Amino acid sequence: MTLNIGMFGAGRIGIVHARSIAGNTRSKLVAVTDLVPQAAQSLANEYDASAMSADEILADANIDAIVIASSTNTHIDLIEAGIKAGKAVFCEKPVDLDLSRAKACLETVAGHNKPVMIGFNRRFDPDFTTLKAAFDAGEVGKGELLSITSFDPAPSSVEYIKVSGGLFRDMAIHDFDMACWLFGAVPQTIIATGSCLIDSEFSAVGDIDTAVITLKFADGRIATIRNSRRAAYGYDQRLELLGEKGLLSAGNVLENTVVKSTVDGIISANPEYFFLERYTRSYSIGWASFVDAVLDGTEIPVSVADGVNALAIAEAAGMSLEQGRAVELAPLLKGAA
Amino acid sequence: MTLNIGMFGAGRIGIVHARSIAGNTRSKLVAVTDLVPQAAQSLANEYDASAMSADEILADANIDAIVIASSTNTHIDLIEAGIKAGKAVFCEKPVDLDLSRAKACLETVAGHNKPVMIGFNRRFDPDFTTLKAAFDAGEVGKGELLSITSFDPAPSSVEYIKVSGGLFRDMAIHDFDMACWLFGAVPQTIIATGSCLIDSEFSAVGDIDTAVITLKFADGRIATIRNSRRAAYGYDQRLELLGEKGLLSAGNVLENTVVKSTVDGIISANPEYFFLERYTRSYSIGWASFVDAVLDGTEIPVSVADGVNALAIAEAAGMSLEQGRAVELAPLLKGAA
Amino acid sequence: MTLNIGMFGAGRIGIVHARSIAGNTRSKLVAVTDLVPQAAQSLANEYDASAMSADEILADANIDAIVIASSTNTHIDLIEAGIKAGKAVFCEKPVDLDLSRAKACLETVAGHNKPVMIGFNRRFDPDFTTLKAAFDAGEVGKGELLSITSFDPAPSSVEYIKVSGGLFRDMAIHDFDMACWLFGAVPQTIIATGSCLIDSEFSAVGDIDTAVITLKFADGRIATIRNSRRAAYGYDQRLELLGEKGLLSAGNVLENTVVKSTVDGIISANPEYFFLERYTRSYSIGWASFVDAVLDGTEIPVSVADGVNALAIAEAAGMSLEQGRAVELAPLLKGAA
Amino acid sequence: MTLNIGMFGAGRIGIVHARSIAGNTRSKLVAVTDLVPQAAQSLANEYDASAMSADEILADANIDAIVIASSTNTHIDLIEAGIKAGKAVFCEKPVDLDLSRAKACLETVAGHNKPVMIGFNRRFDPDFTTLKAAFDAGEVGKGELLSITSFDPAPSSVEYIKVSGGLFRDMAIHDFDMACWLFGAVPQTIIATGSCLIDSEFSAVGDIDTAVITLKFADGRIATIRNSRRAAYGYDQRLELLGEKGLLSAGNVLENTVVKSTVDGIISANPEYFFLERYTRSYSIGWASFVDAVLDGTEIPVSVADGVNALAIAEAAGMSLEQGRAVELAPLLKGAA
Repeated sequence: MTLNIGMFGAGRIGIVHARSIAGNTRSKLVAVTDLVPQAAQSLANEYDASAMSADEILADANIDAIVIASSTNTHIDLIEAGIKAGKAVFCEKPVDLDLSRAKACLETVAGHNKPVMIGFNRRFDPDFTTLKAAFDAGEVGKGELLSITSFDPAPSSVEYIKVSGGLFRDMAIHDFDMACWLFGAVPQTIIATGSCLIDSEFSAVGDIDTAVITLKFADGRIATIRNSRRAAYGYDQRLELLGEKGLLSAGNVLENTVVKSTVDGIISANPEYFFLERYTRSYSIGWASFVDAVLDGTEIPVSVADGVNALAIAEAAGMSLEQGRAVELAPLLKGAA
Repeated sequence: MTLNIGMFGAGRIGIVHARSIAGNTRSKLVAVTDLVPQAAQSLANEYDASAMSADEILADANIDAIVIASSTNTHIDLIEAGIKAGKAVFCEKPVDLDLSRAKACLETVAGHNKPVMIGFNRRFDPDFTTLKAAFDAGEVGKGELLSITSFDPAPSSVEYIKVSGGLFRDMAIHDFDMACWLFGAVPQTIIATGSCLIDSEFSAVGDIDTAVITLKFADGRIATIRNSRRAAYGYDQRLELLGEKGLLSAGNVLENTVVKSTVDGIISANPEYFFLERYTRSYSIGWASFVDAVLDGTEIPVSVADGVNALAIAEAAGMSLEQGRAVELAPLLKGAA
Repeated sequence: MTLNIGMFGAGRIGIVHARSIAGNTRSKLVAVTDLVPQAAQSLANEYDASAMSADEILADANIDAIVIASSTNTHIDLIEAGIKAGKAVFCEKPVDLDLSRAKACLETVAGHNKPVMIGFNRRFDPDFTTLKAAFDAGEVGKGELLSITSFDPAPSSVEYIKVSGGLFRDMAIHDFDMACWLFGAVPQTIIATGSCLIDSEFSAVGDIDTAVITLKFADGRIATIRNSRRAAYGYDQRLELLGEKGLLSAGNVLENTVVKSTVDGIISANPEYFFLERYTRSYSIGWASFVDAVLDGTEIPVSVADGVNALAIAEAAGMSLEQGRAVELAPLLKGAA
Repeated sequence: MTLNIGMFGAGRIGIVHARSIAGNTRSKLVAVTDLVPQAAQSLANEYDASAMSADEILADANIDAIVIASSTNTHIDLIEAGIKAGKAVFCEKPVDLDLSRAKACLETVAGHNKPVMIGFNRRFDPDFTTLKAAFDAGEVGKGELLSITSFDPAPSSVEYIKVSGGLFRDMAIHDFDMACWLFGAVPQTIIATGSCLIDSEFSAVGDIDTAVITLKFADGRIATIRNSRRAAYGYDQRLELLGEKGLLSAGNVLENTVVKSTVDGIISANPEYFFLERYTRSYSIGWASFVDAVLDGTEIPVSVADGVNALAIAEAAGMSLEQGRAVELAPLLKGAA
């Protein structure tokens, strides 16, 4: 059986998902909608799908599942519309920028019996899943200190930053989810430091571009996340997990293995430039996990609750940065799951 | 326009090419033939193609090109039948095990105006093309000493070895082509050393399993090739090119970037296990280069002459091993191209 | 001219310094004192020096400089006695465990005109000085985010921990100095997270064994330090400095360059096991910098003020850990420098 | 007891040995001689030794051992004079440029009961001894294919080349000894390829600057050596040993561990520049092994026979290059050992 997919949003990330859908033998893109009709039509054409209105997609009984790749402020409405229309839902992160709304959505989703997956694609990166498998197999014993490096190659535009929800909700949210996923728990307290060092306009719109966020878990384990909006050498995405018996680390994926040795040094290639290159495989593997879960009736690997947890950590990080203190997560999660 | 493809041979390598054909938007597998009808049918089914006889494929005007992935002894007959039937031809290496026959085939091909490409896929490996581009751009100046490491992960069966043509024609032939391609020339003399160290049955059937072959070019440049039928840690495929200004090297592609540090050391992943993993990309890029050349009328990137050159070097290496002396290539190429 | 040295303390670290003194053509160990007379005699014998009492050393006009390698609680008294006796002083870190006493000592030292150096040896590690030189030369532009990894190979005994002053004053203090040295400034605020994960007895004596401390500088630059009392794979001592134009990193020094590739992976040697191996060179280079400064009348490279700064940061980290908030450094430094 | 040393030759390599002698608590440089009296005096002064004539050194009963660091053509005469004078002898490689003379010397040495060591220092390099220990411990099983990379950073002067004995006797001789030492045997046949690519003046004086020499051992094991007089990135000294269970490799020692990542790539430090840096440790460890053997009466780790073997291989390589054929070693060794 093939899952027929309706796509909401034909922008950059919609295009990524369309490619994953087409590359999976169990799914087929059949409909696309976008605020910009030409964008919808163009993506639809590429995959022999139809451009439709949002309502038409929701009403079309032939469509089994929807992918929400539209702007963040539409996510919750579409999740709820999707499940009410009886469709499985795959929604890009974040669930929402507002924690209360996200928690309310979680309740709504819990009340229906439809699979909803949040697109934390990095969980499906082969290097990271290899690291997690080794960790879960006890290869370094009990976990103690997790370190996540996550630097973008170049800062986004100020226009994007303005509507992004800020570094914690927009960028670090992936890392918050990564920490929860690797440690199999949510943290107890969050403590954050941040600065605006790259572009003073980010500061003017109330954001930072460089940050260190440290999560402490109830059993004492610690996770620390380093974020920067700029790494001149490319997308820097690394994990280090110190355990009682050693260290597991996942390094950057380089553009190639060629090394040039000259009088100027020994020069290797840069990391793959940005997420479209670096996480190509994780997007398609993540998509396959959604398709398989829906078709085979197994558990969805990233739930709305996961999305709410990451958002609550982002909220806590923001409070910590503003107030200069460690912030407890539990009160923020009250009412969720 | 789409190139319709007829496949000769539905074994391991035929399956590799079928995947490349399907993954390319400008080509389509339409017919498959094999000595084992079920194999042909099975592969055909997978790609919505038809199982046919060889003659039917050659006679089918709807088929634009053939892929020869059948056993080596059929290569030349099929190349000639293909071009006579007016089809473009993609033929797996080697052209033949017999140099005279291969040279005769070269003449036949020259007499027709049909594109014929030999499947030296490694030329299309992204790491190797990056290295060659850097070399051709003069990044290490004039080339002096090329070193090719090419170790299989585990020895083939003696049954295979018997019909393989021997290590030089079967395995090192890729490396001979690599050396010619990187240096843009054929060598002047060949000198080889070899042993049977892994499996004494290889020796019983007249073959070796470990070898060093050194090629000297007319301008003094040297290329040295190290071959082994066994590397317990996986497929070892590396290049080093020393030039006047430095060294370019292409390393192994590892299975993942995860590193485990324990009391036992710092442990990285092994190289990708064998050619199906390591050269997946090179097969599809090589295939695309064939399709593009045929459809766009541009030059075929690997000619039959390239195949003959590599085979002649293999012949010379065999003579050198047997006679304990440096062997000139020119007399062996006489009559070719 | 040769600097004649009197050594206070013939324990592990005294032995290290004795070796540096002997290895330097401009210094000579002439006297040793220790609470355990045999220890003093034994070390003295090894270097043709004399075992003396502390008072004898201070009174000996032939002795130009003293090295304080005795227990931490004796440091300040000996610094002050040394400079009053007209001797140059090299004192192991930390100045003291008590910040007020250390600040008072700073005043005393300022009142005399005698060189006093604090033994933050890591500043002299060749890899770290290479990194700093590259940074100071602007190779990655303006600094933004410094990350220091500092893991001991194995936890100290609980007996040691009890008198150590705690992880921040005993272990992280090196990293605090490293951050100040690399950024050429003291931080504005300190925020710390810590746990006792390795040995619950550490917790019983009021200490932690795993920590992340983040320093924010007045201009927004951030430094983050990761500490653990245990890294099963060896002493883990790394720096990463992200700047506007790239990243500078200094990796671990491995025991050797041998790599073993087998079916179990690609296995490199561990980092050098602990500080005696890893920082052998930094101890001797640091010592040479002291000798040269004293003999040539140039500036001492690590001042008592540097020691006070690092201690104040440790104090702030302790307060942050206890109170769950960011702590300002300035009030703690009041009265210093 | 301390070994009193008389040094013949106060040039570059004599200075290296003088440092090793001084750094060893069981040896003391007491006398130096050189054709250039000022050179002898200068070196003698540095170590509180005396400048003497060669005859005075040989006659001085207080001198236990001599180091021969004078020009190659003096080696054999001094070895013989030394042992006849009852002294232990440490002689720089090569024994001589003439194989017959070297074999005659071997006989002379055998007739006396005095320890004579040849200075193949690389056997004592800690990375190489670690590799050999792992190999001897069976960590990769039976050896199959050894690969030695040995590139100088920059070509010597033509003046030096003229008297050097040529690339095989002067440079590759270290690698020949390395192969024999690692495999614990001398090869059966030698086959060599070489070119003059770097400096045509080398060719004018009958030498080459780039070479590949392949050694085949009686049991089929193969060793291949790659030599170049120029590697723009620094001294390239690597080993790879393929065995039935895997690969052991020893990499270059880099100048530091600092890595700079920028838009131009990920840039590591170069290998240590040349042998004085790279092999500092091997010279002092090798020296210690001589001192220990002499004082403790244990076996000398590198014998004159080892020096003759390496020289015979160099001779065979030269014959192979000239005649374009594999050359048997046995006839060349006839009369030796």
